[in-house]
Amino acid sequence: MNELQQQLNFLFQIEQLKAIYRQTTVKDDNNRYENSAEHSWHIALVAQVLHQYAEHDIDINRITRMLLIHDIIEIDAGDLFAFAESHHHEEQAKKELAAADRLFGLLPAQQGAEMKALWIEFELAESHDAQFAKAMDRILPLFQNMANQGGSWVVHSIKKQQVLDRNSYLQASTPKLWQYACSQIDLAVENGWLIDA
Amino acid sequence: MNELQQQLNFLFQIEQLKAIYRQTTVKDDNNRYENSAEHSWHIALVAQVLHQYAEHDIDINRITRMLLIHDIIEIDAGDLFAFAESHHHEEQAKKELAAADRLFGLLPAQQGAEMKALWIEFELAESHDAQFAKAMDRILPLFQNMANQGGSWVVHSIKKQQVLDRNSYLQASTPKLWQYACSQIDLAVENGWLIDA
Repeated sequence: MNELQQQLNFLFQIEQLKAIYRQTTVKDDNNRYENSAEHSWHIALVAQVLHQYAEHDIDINRITRMLLIHDIIEIDAGDLFAFAESHHHEEQAKKELAAADRLFGLLPAQQGAEMKALWIEFELAESHDAQFAKAMDRILPLFQNMANQGGSWVVHSIKKQQVLDRNSYLQASTPKLWQYACSQIDLAVENGWLIDA
Repeated sequence: MNELQQQLNFLFQIEQLKAIYRQTTVKDDNNRYENSAEHSWHIALVAQVLHQYAEHDIDINRITRMLLIHDIIEIDAGDLFAFAESHHHEEQAKKELAAADRLFGLLPAQQGAEMKALWIEFELAESHDAQFAKAMDRILPLFQNMANQGGSWVVHSIKKQQVLDRNSYLQASTPKLWQYACSQIDLAVENGWLIDA
């Protein structure tokens, strides 16, 4: 296969992300489940619109690329619910690494290596760019659940502390949005959408 | 509303793009119709992966932003099938401009103006960035129809010349991909997926 064919094959195969469903639902479309492709579009725009609130110097173009590819590994590894138990997360990490090798490996070597490195950076969440990207990925379901009378929090009896822990990247990465998220979480508890524990 | 609330309201309202359906179908998900949000994710990545084939100097970060927002106006204006008759396209243009005013107008003034300008640039297709973005937007359904035994071409009895016309941005913007698209169009005619006229 020549380089163009490799690239087209990759672009063709990632279409499968449109068939990977998450726990969040789309209120505007009869509350059907959301897929990971449209989610990736949405958070790329969340980052574009909200990047002024980043606490550190960040590169919004790298973050956008990161968010566009961050879920591609789910094509092989599936989507794990954010609040699944921790031993599931360990197994999932192994599956995701194998998925990254296969999927980014479809591309010409250098291009694939660059995308895989960007995905690993996102997963490690050590750089400011990755921390901001993670913060965006986590704040969006919070907004969606707030708009859906608690959404997946209610379905799975989630506790306030779990949501606070999950959104902790916001605290250092974007304190203003963290403050806003905390006020929303308090409101969710008041409304009975999160367990006060 | 303060600035953050305006931004969150915009990000909340654009979720509706997940409920705007196109004529293309998702082969990997029981051939259901594709929505414009997941389509926007896909072509943003098409552009990221294929930008090396651009004939002119382009700014892939601007193009990515353009592609992420290019369909948002469909929330108010709906999606018009690519091969609809031309008087429909005129009406559609008016609806889309009103939609851009309303939707980008939800954002803080400067941010909204920047996004609207980027959308207008895409629509006018005069800059190299916009022409490359348009080329990506048009080549993807071609790949999808090729992968779906002709897909929406077969359903609507589309002619070869219509597809050539629709993909003409490719010719100047990315000759290598134009050449590839032409070979695919010839193959589609051979397979009986496009009418040879």
